[in-house]
Amino acid sequence: MSIYLDNQAAKPVDERVVSEMMQYFNDKFANPASLHCDGDIATDILEKSREKIADFVHAPNASDIIFTSGATESNNLALIGGANFYKRKGNQIIISEIEHISILNIAKHLEKEGFKITRLPVDRFGIVRLDKLEKLINDDTILVSISTASNEVGSLQPIEEISKIAKEKKVLFHTDAVASESVAPLDLEKVPIDLVTLSSNDIYGPRGVGALYIKKGVRVNPIIIGGGQERGFRSGSENVPGIVGFAKAAEIMKQEMPKEVEFFKNQRDRLIKGVLSSIPKSYLNGHPEKRLPNNAHFRFDYIEGESLILEMKEHNIALATGSACTSKTLEPSHVLRAIGLKHEEAHGSLLFTLGKQTTKEEIDYVISILPDIIKRLRAMSPLTPNELKE
Amino acid sequence: MSIYLDNQAAKPVDERVVSEMMQYFNDKFANPASLHCDGDIATDILEKSREKIADFVHAPNASDIIFTSGATESNNLALIGGANFYKRKGNQIIISEIEHISILNIAKHLEKEGFKITRLPVDRFGIVRLDKLEKLINDDTILVSISTASNEVGSLQPIEEISKIAKEKKVLFHTDAVASESVAPLDLEKVPIDLVTLSSNDIYGPRGVGALYIKKGVRVNPIIIGGGQERGFRSGSENVPGIVGFAKAAEIMKQEMPKEVEFFKNQRDRLIKGVLSSIPKSYLNGHPEKRLPNNAHFRFDYIEGESLILEMKEHNIALATGSACTSKTLEPSHVLRAIGLKHEEAHGSLLFTLGKQTTKEEIDYVISILPDIIKRLRAMSPLTPNELKE
Repeated sequence: MSIYLDNQAAKPVDERVVSEMMQYFNDKFANPASLHCDGDIATDILEKSREKIADFVHAPNASDIIFTSGATESNNLALIGGANFYKRKGNQIIISEIEHISILNIAKHLEKEGFKITRLPVDRFGIVRLDKLEKLINDDTILVSISTASNEVGSLQPIEEISKIAKEKKVLFHTDAVASESVAPLDLEKVPIDLVTLSSNDIYGPRGVGALYIKKGVRVNPIIIGGGQERGFRSGSENVPGIVGFAKAAEIMKQEMPKEVEFFKNQRDRLIKGVLSSIPKSYLNGHPEKRLPNNAHFRFDYIEGESLILEMKEHNIALATGSACTSKTLEPSHVLRAIGLKHEEAHGSLLFTLGKQTTKEEIDYVISILPDIIKRLRAMSPLTPNELKE
Repeated sequence: MSIYLDNQAAKPVDERVVSEMMQYFNDKFANPASLHCDGDIATDILEKSREKIADFVHAPNASDIIFTSGATESNNLALIGGANFYKRKGNQIIISEIEHISILNIAKHLEKEGFKITRLPVDRFGIVRLDKLEKLINDDTILVSISTASNEVGSLQPIEEISKIAKEKKVLFHTDAVASESVAPLDLEKVPIDLVTLSSNDIYGPRGVGALYIKKGVRVNPIIIGGGQERGFRSGSENVPGIVGFAKAAEIMKQEMPKEVEFFKNQRDRLIKGVLSSIPKSYLNGHPEKRLPNNAHFRFDYIEGESLILEMKEHNIALATGSACTSKTLEPSHVLRAIGLKHEEAHGSLLFTLGKQTTKEEIDYVISILPDIIKRLRAMSPLTPNELKE
């Protein structure tokens, strides 16, 4: 394994989580729907797991946690399910310009189905414009969906204010909390939100599991129909080992987040300082303070992001350019365009996301090798001014 | 753990499968969408796993295997996705009267959306009426969905003949192969089917993973939208450890199925003979020969199924009454009604499904205790004739 600094795209599963899951693979493996003792045991652990997830986000009722197969499904359930349930009430859905690809593509789908999608602009730091949000909400608006943080430039969104505006204007508020889940605690008692997307892997739990918090009284149409599991919101026999792992990850994360955040902030700040001070014409994308503690997103003039990724690959460093979920398409990032970067500026970007397995030495190594790599790449480009080639 | 004879509802994960999955939790854990080396490793194992699943069902192209979160999602993708894609072609969908609850409820949903759902009747053994199928297909028919076997009474359906009829009549054929996956090999080269639902847990792989085989040229609209993974048919970062486990389970199942089927047939036949010969007014539901090798479904006159399950629970035997996915609703089984049983007959039923962990001794134990339990329960019922109370 390389020096892995792409923790936004995937995280290792905590070993304590894997241990916890083990007994549910071939010992306590029954279906919670079964009437017998083994089914009762499965139901019991399912409900205990639900309570742990509720506890992690301070959800008022454990039953408001609906288990899904992951964040993308949760986003589909919130937006498509919500739009279809409330379509008699109105037709407009507001998302931000810098949402995750899953929200963007769901919005495009809803647009084809006849819904009106309005895209809320962001400032040059990637933070949504609250003044514009208030103006955009009208009688036809049913739902506002804005992520807690940009999964790309790392900017933290003012979700408390958005929650207040949504409440005042009587529209639903959905947030995809995946990007911030491991570094910024959610408190749904203090900051009420109607629909919240959660992912297991983003807090070092197993993949293929997630949840949608659906506040009591809020409804969505199911998108996976069948045996009526999860209060009818999501059918299909529950993935008990996965859910147990998700719950264990939440329990660990709740305890260890403060310590980890402290570590991330230190390392991220060292990385930012190290890069900006040693590489001319390098810039930090996103907000300097209001950003994810484990995110450092740079751009470098006269650099092609893809070549940079490949150079880093040669040095055994695993990184992302642009959004993790679309990196294979090589399209310029919609987020960087939305914060006002030109096409060529957007292309010279590099995203570092730290994970709890990241070490101080790994950050030192990156700081030590990056200036030379940038220098070499710039030397090969005809666009680079001569003073940067020396 | 009890004597577990409810393997249709959930199966233990094979230990070799769990071992295979381990390295993908916290060593090779990257996202296949990532551009770096670790992402390449994940892509590689993902595609190798796809080939193993294709090999298991003799699918002509590995790329026709689309990974999902399980059988229920696959059924939704096939039926809702297929119906919506082909709705310009026609409006009628044919399912059998004895489909799994997920298919039944998806059909109800499509009915509300304006599709015409036609329910194909079955004979008294629970086998679909092919003569009726030919007559029911018309110019408006787009899709026929019939499971390979009844997950309840165990009857094997004539899928080869259905495949021929569908081909002749130029309609799509979908089959949910979950109930037969571990005991009856599928050969999609020999018996072409357009859409096939597969589940990982039903071949002793991890839960929360499944697949939909989509024959080259056949299309469905996605139901989970996002980053465009799985050729756009199913978005969401792939659950690599789960998929690796599913593939390992398929590999093992391919080799070991013949031996296991032999064992199941012997034990099932001993169980059937033991029960029918020692308990008066007991009957086998489903077809005597054309049935799943691991399924024995009985009914007993003057017995309430729920009390019987509870008695078996006392004796530490885990069993299902009716369909596994709806057992908690306590409604009389739609399958038993469809094969012509009266309400009270349907209620006195008990389903045994054997798994590869089942032992000869467990079957002996069941045969030894069941007659007394039935006698005791009958003695308490005012409906039991006196001669059965002695």
